Amino acid sequence: MAFVLIGFMGAGKSTVAGRLARLRGRSALDSDVLLAERFGHSVAREFELHGEESFRAAEEELVCRLLGDVSARDVVALGGGSVLSARVRDALDGHVTALLEVAPDTAWERVQAAEDGSERPPARDREAFGALYAERRGLYEEVADAALLWAESASGDYPVFVGDGLLDGKDGGGDRLVTIWPLAPIASRPYGVTDTNVARLYGERLSALGDPDAPPEQIAIEPGELHKTLASAELVWRELARRGMTRADHVVALGGGVVGDLAGFCAATYQRGVPVVHVPTTLVAQVDSAYGGKTGVDLPGAKNYVGAYHQPAGVLVDPGMLATLAPAELAAGWVEVLKTALIAGGTLWERVSAADGCYVDKRTILDCARTKLAIVSADERDGGRRQVLNLGHTVGHAIEAVTGYARYRHGEAVGLGLLAALRLSGAEDLRARVRELLLARDLPITLDSANVDIEEIVAATARDKKRLGADGVPFVLLSTPGEPQIGCEVADDELRAAVRELAS
Amino acid sequence: MAFVLIGFMGAGKSTVAGRLARLRGRSALDSDVLLAERFGHSVAREFELHGEESFRAAEEELVCRLLGDVSARDVVALGGGSVLSARVRDALDGHVTALLEVAPDTAWERVQAAEDGSERPPARDREAFGALYAERRGLYEEVADAALLWAESASGDYPVFVGDGLLDGKDGGGDRLVTIWPLAPIASRPYGVTDTNVARLYGERLSALGDPDAPPEQIAIEPGELHKTLASAELVWRELARRGMTRADHVVALGGGVVGDLAGFCAATYQRGVPVVHVPTTLVAQVDSAYGGKTGVDLPGAKNYVGAYHQPAGVLVDPGMLATLAPAELAAGWVEVLKTALIAGGTLWERVSAADGCYVDKRTILDCARTKLAIVSADERDGGRRQVLNLGHTVGHAIEAVTGYARYRHGEAVGLGLLAALRLSGAEDLRARVRELLLARDLPITLDSANVDIEEIVAATARDKKRLGADGVPFVLLSTPGEPQIGCEVADDELRAAVRELAS
Repeated sequence: MAFVLIGFMGAGKSTVAGRLARLRGRSALDSDVLLAERFGHSVAREFELHGEESFRAAEEELVCRLLGDVSARDVVALGGGSVLSARVRDALDGHVTALLEVAPDTAWERVQAAEDGSERPPARDREAFGALYAERRGLYEEVADAALLWAESASGDYPVFVGDGLLDGKDGGGDRLVTIWPLAPIASRPYGVTDTNVARLYGERLSALGDPDAPPEQIAIEPGELHKTLASAELVWRELARRGMTRADHVVALGGGVVGDLAGFCAATYQRGVPVVHVPTTLVAQVDSAYGGKTGVDLPGAKNYVGAYHQPAGVLVDPGMLATLAPAELAAGWVEVLKTALIAGGTLWERVSAADGCYVDKRTILDCARTKLAIVSADERDGGRRQVLNLGHTVGHAIEAVTGYARYRHGEAVGLGLLAALRLSGAEDLRARVRELLLARDLPITLDSANVDIEEIVAATARDKKRLGADGVPFVLLSTPGEPQIGCEVADDELRAAVRELAS
Repeated sequence: MAFVLIGFMGAGKSTVAGRLARLRGRSALDSDVLLAERFGHSVAREFELHGEESFRAAEEELVCRLLGDVSARDVVALGGGSVLSARVRDALDGHVTALLEVAPDTAWERVQAAEDGSERPPARDREAFGALYAERRGLYEEVADAALLWAESASGDYPVFVGDGLLDGKDGGGDRLVTIWPLAPIASRPYGVTDTNVARLYGERLSALGDPDAPPEQIAIEPGELHKTLASAELVWRELARRGMTRADHVVALGGGVVGDLAGFCAATYQRGVPVVHVPTTLVAQVDSAYGGKTGVDLPGAKNYVGAYHQPAGVLVDPGMLATLAPAELAAGWVEVLKTALIAGGTLWERVSAADGCYVDKRTILDCARTKLAIVSADERDGGRRQVLNLGHTVGHAIEAVTGYARYRHGEAVGLGLLAALRLSGAEDLRARVRELLLARDLPITLDSANVDIEEIVAATARDKKRLGADGVPFVLLSTPGEPQIGCEVADDELRAAVRELAS
């Protein structure tokens, strides 16, 4: 069983396959390169000389032979059109196949920029290119076991795999499928970090990672934000040391935001840094917190005060895991989907605002991940652009702090924070729409003013602004989905009015 | 009082002045640029047209006027020859002057590579260039309050200032000289982290940092390696939070290796990273541990197991502080000087091996810092070249571990480790010389075999190798000063013989 990359021309299959193959100490196998070698000239030239039909026949034969001949350590990149062949699709059945995601505009730009003359005729006209993309997309999705996003940041690139049953094994057979996802070098031993709840649900699947004869170590902390502490981190560090983890090994963070933040921080600092693979199990983690490299733990009364930026070595997302979440947890997580859709605008906003309930499909998870990754890659360390991600969080954090992190879930507080931010943005219609969406999901849309002191929330917001210091930027506002504004000054009385409105 | 950079042509004064000025929200003032503006053509052209004498007169006049007209926030770069003028030297008296260090070969290369035609006639002949460098060096050193090395690394550049009485204030008058060293943005508040011993000796000088009306916060941990723990780190993090430190502020680490490692780690992780300025007070810290960005704390039985790479924002070295060290501490620190000299070879080795006692001069500190920085900049995260710094440390660490970090100081153990490494390198003459040098400083040259188990040391060394994992490299060997070899395989029986020899 090998690892096979499919996808549209210009998706970057050759480059990504090369990076993944290097993890396994191999070179990638690239069907277009192999075909060009056989032809004695480029694939484009072959198209011109003998036409598409003849080319497809040669491709089918080569790809089928290639797929019959590879081993589990191989990484293969297939030409964009090769999956048109039913024989090729059959041959793919025995392998793990990932669809490398690319936006059509990006693909078109890359194909235009390629100067080696290897591109085929369909790339010569933007309209035909778009039509071909739309036509093939469904086929790709049908064939692939998972989607693959390639995340890029200043401090490293990494793969994000999204697919149902990723940890179940192909066909749910538990056949250690996960060992085939190229996330860490083959000799690197995984050390699982999780919480006791998740361990009960998914601990066994985690044991599918790594060497079958030596299942990975598992370290479980107590669940919940109350345990995102230095004490939990110390437990993890000591256990990693006691169990002999070396710098060549890696951490697998299996859980929600708390586990991801804490395990990521432990990985960032264990022996001055080991890789971490995130396997997010909650909606917030799957659409948001697993990406971007922010890790940390809380000090008493000071959320995320100790931490590090540490980009993951990879992220494995199985949307099927969301089925085990309690409805209120899922709804709270959905608020981050809503926030991301407001920031992204466009089709993501249309899809999210039109959908019912809190379940999200693979496409929405991918779009949320892509949105966050695009923002983070432009500003890894929170200097500017990344602050758009704080939409709804300034007031949200204050509500959480004032209510002792006990009354509202993080997502619930952010939902209220979004309403305040939209009020401050003067976006009344949009605020009404967001209010409806929250209401329809049984999410809170008002503060319980009998028990929550509005002035305290205003004061906590001001403290938060101060904490950021001279470089801190006060507010993210948004009048239109897709157009967040950072660094907006907000007067205290406007803020007071916006928070007070939540209490009425 | 402004900050003025002097030094040879090609030292990089303009570039460095620009970076330092940016910290203060200013542009640097560059005498050569101002002169060229006045002439209406380049300085080189002026030399050609009217000769050196006329140029020097114009330069003297401009520089004296400039120095009379600047404020404390200004950073000034002076042309290489300007300090030849006694009037200029007098004018410098009212300012803080740093000599930007550069090796003559580097300077020559830069001057040759400069294509803007701004260089003056002396740069046209390597021999004359070298003679001029040698001639001016003494004058520069006499004029400067401190030497400045510009450290470069993949994750950031920073200044290293070395000078007697840096924290005393100019002329020892305690006139907050230190506030003028451009290490952190002017609005950034310093938070001192130190230990209780150092606080007693130097705490008051630390209060010269920062705003006179609001002296900096000071947090003191218990002294010694036994307190390089998560508990001490937690104390520091909590105090920083309690005292309202923001991401715009910075930590000042005042102390030896333990304080530097711990405060550096706290800075690396407080709110996901704030700048740290190191003010090393011990010899080990001044020549070695303050540079290179390795930070961390110990887990029980596992040295430096939790940490981060975090390059300093700057390093301030006052060799005068060494006078307060206990003789045995100074001697143990001197072993790192010896190690660095062995790695560097050349004039550093000649100077160190010829000197008496353990005190080192400014030049030796600078050369040690430069040696370490050159190695680290090529390999910030320990992938390869940086491992040369482990010369003598593999067996040294094992001796420390087996003796419970109680019997030998770190430097003493490294001295023994150096003897073992030189034995393994087959460098008998060099080993004899190093043995003499250690002996002359009352440093241990044998292991007390009645109390130390040789086999345990061999086993601990093997464990250490294993801990490094697949990428770990076993031994650094060295036959000739200046030529360390990394990644040398050493058989267990050779190792045993080398350690056993220490016990005889």
